[in-house]
Amino acid sequence: MKGKFSILSFALLSCLGATAQQAIWGVPPFMTPEVNPDQTVTFRFASPAAKSVMITGDFLPPQKIQTPYGVFDAPGYASLQKNGEVWEYTTTVLSPELYSYSFIVDSVKMNDPVNVHQIRDTGTITNIFLVTGNENDKDNVLDYAVQDVPHGMVSKVWYHSDALAKDRRLTVYTPNEYMQGNKRYPVLYLLHGMGGDENAWSELGRATQILDNMIAAGKIEPMIVVMPNGNADLQAAPGESSLGFVPPTTQLPRTMDGSFSAAFPEIVNFIDSHYRTLTDKADRAIAGLSMGGCHSKFISLNYPDLFDYIGLFSAAVTQHSESKSEIFQNEEQKVDALFAKHPKLYWIGIGKDDFLMEENKAYRALLDKKGYKYTYVETPGGHIWRNWRIYLREFLPQLFRK
Amino acid sequence: MKGKFSILSFALLSCLGATAQQAIWGVPPFMTPEVNPDQTVTFRFASPAAKSVMITGDFLPPQKIQTPYGVFDAPGYASLQKNGEVWEYTTTVLSPELYSYSFIVDSVKMNDPVNVHQIRDTGTITNIFLVTGNENDKDNVLDYAVQDVPHGMVSKVWYHSDALAKDRRLTVYTPNEYMQGNKRYPVLYLLHGMGGDENAWSELGRATQILDNMIAAGKIEPMIVVMPNGNADLQAAPGESSLGFVPPTTQLPRTMDGSFSAAFPEIVNFIDSHYRTLTDKADRAIAGLSMGGCHSKFISLNYPDLFDYIGLFSAAVTQHSESKSEIFQNEEQKVDALFAKHPKLYWIGIGKDDFLMEENKAYRALLDKKGYKYTYVETPGGHIWRNWRIYLREFLPQLFRK
Repeated sequence: MKGKFSILSFALLSCLGATAQQAIWGVPPFMTPEVNPDQTVTFRFASPAAKSVMITGDFLPPQKIQTPYGVFDAPGYASLQKNGEVWEYTTTVLSPELYSYSFIVDSVKMNDPVNVHQIRDTGTITNIFLVTGNENDKDNVLDYAVQDVPHGMVSKVWYHSDALAKDRRLTVYTPNEYMQGNKRYPVLYLLHGMGGDENAWSELGRATQILDNMIAAGKIEPMIVVMPNGNADLQAAPGESSLGFVPPTTQLPRTMDGSFSAAFPEIVNFIDSHYRTLTDKADRAIAGLSMGGCHSKFISLNYPDLFDYIGLFSAAVTQHSESKSEIFQNEEQKVDALFAKHPKLYWIGIGKDDFLMEENKAYRALLDKKGYKYTYVETPGGHIWRNWRIYLREFLPQLFRK
Repeated sequence: MKGKFSILSFALLSCLGATAQQAIWGVPPFMTPEVNPDQTVTFRFASPAAKSVMITGDFLPPQKIQTPYGVFDAPGYASLQKNGEVWEYTTTVLSPELYSYSFIVDSVKMNDPVNVHQIRDTGTITNIFLVTGNENDKDNVLDYAVQDVPHGMVSKVWYHSDALAKDRRLTVYTPNEYMQGNKRYPVLYLLHGMGGDENAWSELGRATQILDNMIAAGKIEPMIVVMPNGNADLQAAPGESSLGFVPPTTQLPRTMDGSFSAAFPEIVNFIDSHYRTLTDKADRAIAGLSMGGCHSKFISLNYPDLFDYIGLFSAAVTQHSESKSEIFQNEEQKVDALFAKHPKLYWIGIGKDDFLMEENKAYRALLDKKGYKYTYVETPGGHIWRNWRIYLREFLPQLFRK
């Protein structure tokens, strides 16, 4: 019994549900974006009728924008040129990186209808593409492209928080070898920033790919990585809780009031009782970006026996809230108590243009005054995911070395 | 130490990376879509400059479209009305369902920039929203909204296929209680259609929510559900393999040539050796939609001792390829051999307007002629996810009843 449809027609017909027409006659005769062999990238957009098509993205020379909080770099713009019915733009040579972009068609900002690869950062979705570098130059291949190496398992796991009175979702990475044996592993707790959730590090941060690739290359120890949701009022990422499909920007309250930090040992207990973990202080690390850096700082200060490795990535090192929580009290004494226990690594990284630079300087001045040892890394740019991916790759090889 | 920024300004500044401007001054003063208490839905789009804003979606009266393969229903269109700077459209009362839509702004099709809830079906991304029904009428609440019930774990897991010579990705659902004890569970293997991948059933199919809700309501047995990638040439969903960010439509070859079906016992072996499964035929089910229905049919015919429950959802019951694979040979004898072993359930469901109706009729005629017992369900509509979600909810309660 053979059917009368070809595979291709069958595939097209299979798409006939909600999205019919585009699947049948919308298939454009081009790739976009196309990463060229010389590491330039060509974008294409089909529209005979549009009067103007522009592109904006983080690979274009930035422009200064004035905000109530100062002058910041924002992504630049470029114009696509019309070539028949297809508009085109080719970039200069781009260094290996994950980039994002949107089109602006006759003044309307929109995503590339041909590129299904998108990413959400808080309330904004943009298209993404990867420039992976030269395959013949292994040191130049991007650590956060998917490579043909053994892959870890990524799970969405729910735990119950008594303190926050709800079931809450975590992302858990276990290394590829975890499923094969009975070994126990050290654990890194990796925390997102404001507007983020338990998906942020694995999606925007490419943590899964970075871990897979660095473990396969022998650059880091195999480890479990736990990425919780740091918004104390929430159960899970947008759309993943009984709140339904509400906008992420309605989900910000109670993020930095100390309640997530105070409740953190529940997460450690849950992980230690459901995964094959090593449970010494020397086998636990905590790191976070921005708000997650604030969490990492205050969790480690308030629970100084939990973590021997602490990473503050572009961290909000000051309190940033009116909370009277015990978590924020007697900070200097807590710093003294933490360093008296000689953490193996206290790592601080921040971008030169980060709006949190001043408070980081003040915190480092405190540590310097007291003679407490920490590692400090300063990178170009500001408060952006590119930096946090760099910091993760700097931080990981320093963990759990015996 | 308190910072000088308010939580809100801090949140906005945190978004300053690739997506700066929209996060700072693009936040619109409205909800869209807004599901009203009477189950109408209002859509809004901000543009003072647009000349025309339309909406297309599967909740609008369909329009007939002529294709080379016949006349099909496609989503209808409606116009938004300009009200100041905001365009608006309100639907009629909608029954509880997951719906999808796109805007068409001055002839350019685009997604709703304010709604981050989107879904990818093969090469098309559309916005989605849920009408969940009346909370006071529990039987009327949509089984595939996230409800406040214990949630299962969803994992992306890699296994090695010797037959297909690659590492490949699976989605595995384990019920909430799986982590709490040492019980063993029955397993449903749930297969996607052409253009789909290991993410399709959990995303488009809402399988995670359906399982959580039906297990919590005591309507189904707690079970493990395994959702493999049915494209024999591929390792994983778009963007998740070392192919990089290539378009899904380039990923269709070698889907229905028998190689995935022939290699299927490797997946069963992997699951049985890495999860706490029950391994009797009576504790295993297989079901799939469209191409996955083809796979389910031929896997169960060729390995008649593996599954006691078989579900063909809008299935491509004929071969649909030129393959000479052994998998497709001697079909009628294999049907005889399968039914001689008395499967507990052979379930066939299809939409009245499905383009695969004729071949399903022919296959049912064969079963009828031979007097083989099967369950048959016919629903309105065609080859669409709405039907597959309905079939999953019909199929699940019939599995693993002792």
